[in-house]
Amino acid sequence: VQPSVDQVKLGNRRAIARLMTQVENDEAAAHEAIASLHSATGRAHIIGVTGPPGSGKSTLVNEIAKRMRQLHLTVGIVAIDPSSPFTGGALLGDRIRMRDLSGDDGIFIRSMASRGRLGGLARMTGSVVKILDAAGYNTILIETVGAGQAEVDIASAAHTTLVIETPGMGDEIQTIKAGILEIADILVVNKVDRPGSDRTVKALRAMLHMGLAPKPTGHHGVDTNMDTKERTNVKAQTTWEVAVLETIALEGKGIDTTVDAILAHETYLRESGEWLLREISRSRLEVDQLLQAQFISQLQATVPESEFKRLIVEVAKREIDPYSAVNQLYRQMQM
Amino acid sequence: VQPSVDQVKLGNRRAIARLMTQVENDEAAAHEAIASLHSATGRAHIIGVTGPPGSGKSTLVNEIAKRMRQLHLTVGIVAIDPSSPFTGGALLGDRIRMRDLSGDDGIFIRSMASRGRLGGLARMTGSVVKILDAAGYNTILIETVGAGQAEVDIASAAHTTLVIETPGMGDEIQTIKAGILEIADILVVNKVDRPGSDRTVKALRAMLHMGLAPKPTGHHGVDTNMDTKERTNVKAQTTWEVAVLETIALEGKGIDTTVDAILAHETYLRESGEWLLREISRSRLEVDQLLQAQFISQLQATVPESEFKRLIVEVAKREIDPYSAVNQLYRQMQM
Repeated sequence: VQPSVDQVKLGNRRAIARLMTQVENDEAAAHEAIASLHSATGRAHIIGVTGPPGSGKSTLVNEIAKRMRQLHLTVGIVAIDPSSPFTGGALLGDRIRMRDLSGDDGIFIRSMASRGRLGGLARMTGSVVKILDAAGYNTILIETVGAGQAEVDIASAAHTTLVIETPGMGDEIQTIKAGILEIADILVVNKVDRPGSDRTVKALRAMLHMGLAPKPTGHHGVDTNMDTKERTNVKAQTTWEVAVLETIALEGKGIDTTVDAILAHETYLRESGEWLLREISRSRLEVDQLLQAQFISQLQATVPESEFKRLIVEVAKREIDPYSAVNQLYRQMQM
Repeated sequence: VQPSVDQVKLGNRRAIARLMTQVENDEAAAHEAIASLHSATGRAHIIGVTGPPGSGKSTLVNEIAKRMRQLHLTVGIVAIDPSSPFTGGALLGDRIRMRDLSGDDGIFIRSMASRGRLGGLARMTGSVVKILDAAGYNTILIETVGAGQAEVDIASAAHTTLVIETPGMGDEIQTIKAGILEIADILVVNKVDRPGSDRTVKALRAMLHMGLAPKPTGHHGVDTNMDTKERTNVKAQTTWEVAVLETIALEGKGIDTTVDAILAHETYLRESGEWLLREISRSRLEVDQLLQAQFISQLQATVPESEFKRLIVEVAKREIDPYSAVNQLYRQMQM
């Protein structure tokens, strides 16, 4: 049965869950439903939360969600879990989370396992976020493990990105290597009760200072069609300074300040005109992902699997070079 | 000037470096050179080394390289560095490495920054590995930060994958979340002089034990064309048991054992027939990446940038849904 789009828009939890499952199992089938939800989206504030394993992301996300509920905001949580097949990490993390937040109708939680899904994951995440947005959730938190490009991409699909670090995650060079600082709108040093936290906070502030040029607007080189007049009419704060916040998520410390910063960033985005730029950037990512998916479908439809495999084996045996193999496949697709 | 393919094959360091630079700056231009190197590749043993930031990857890779040189093997090192734009992490890491290994003609080191390169990185890494392989290096070490799908992909392009963990990187759930264990042929717990190392080693062994089913062969669903007869003729070790090794890379401890394990894995691959399966898997990845690149070129060639941007803005403003936008672009590309 096709999950009812109208029911999703009304916030029916079962319809939401059913459509999400369909997206995970067969995005193509859910295609039409997702397409027709698009016009009902664009209201939610989408927040990416990223950081290395062990930085306390899940705990922090839970605490942020609880605080937002106190402020009467409804919250969707999408947890991207690069779980091992051995132990079902996604389920495990979910249980812990559920124990904490379950029973509140203003919260909807969805865990997604990233294993073996490659490019498809970002696309599925986008669809799940779209469903939550159309269902009327005010805030959507996307939780991912940082460091990888795929995770950075998912975070790029957010309006506001929180990057979490912890004290003593290695020397400074290693911290730099994490290399996701440049995507942060808000930096959170969690577990500041650990030794070395002052050094980490100072190092991060110093690094931000070194790169203090204002964040480029319109990521991915897409211009907005706002004209200069519109821009100058904006009275609000026009630059955003990345703050370094300190939390102990397990004890609920620093959460109010973090949520205040998130809401301040939302206000900044909306009043400065940056919101539209980020929406354009998000749309660009979405269209790129869909284009790739369509290309793969076409490949599968026009080149028989057996022939594809035969070519791959020839490349492996050095009977043909990969560039010639690709040209051959490509010509076949054009017919 | 087109770098000389013949000079690369002769191991001329300047020709190698020049072709690598060309690949980094303009893969399309280097296309022909890379294609003509393909038939000279397939001899090197390619080793992916991956692990979280702070796990001591670079130090371990350096020590492995030194040990391999003692065994009279030549070594290429490709370091994928997700560096921040603030500080030029790639350069910094390079300097440290150079101080250690420079002056040895049997070692060639190349650092690649991953920032802002997305899918292109895996393709470039593949080309750089191909150049080193054709130039006659016996062993190629690819060093990446683990956790992200992009890095996992790069590691998948290897014959042998080392996954590095360190003691006390967080509780067990977090370790599971790192989720890259399933790609490991060899697991290394580095910094075992740290507290909690016994617990980490035990936990990893337990997790491996839980998932002890033999590793599936022929990743990515590509079958080899080896028939059953060929398979049964193979007398060698036909399964590989992932070992958990303990090292203190900074003090050079455990390195000999690690290198022994790497060479044992190479022997296993070659004698079991698994080598060809991994070559097929590597070729599949390469062809997939080239296909995507070609698709993007075609998109850029057929859809004017201004029109592409206009559509994106319409999607962002919810005037059109992304699926309809993609259909429109796709139709235009087919004309």
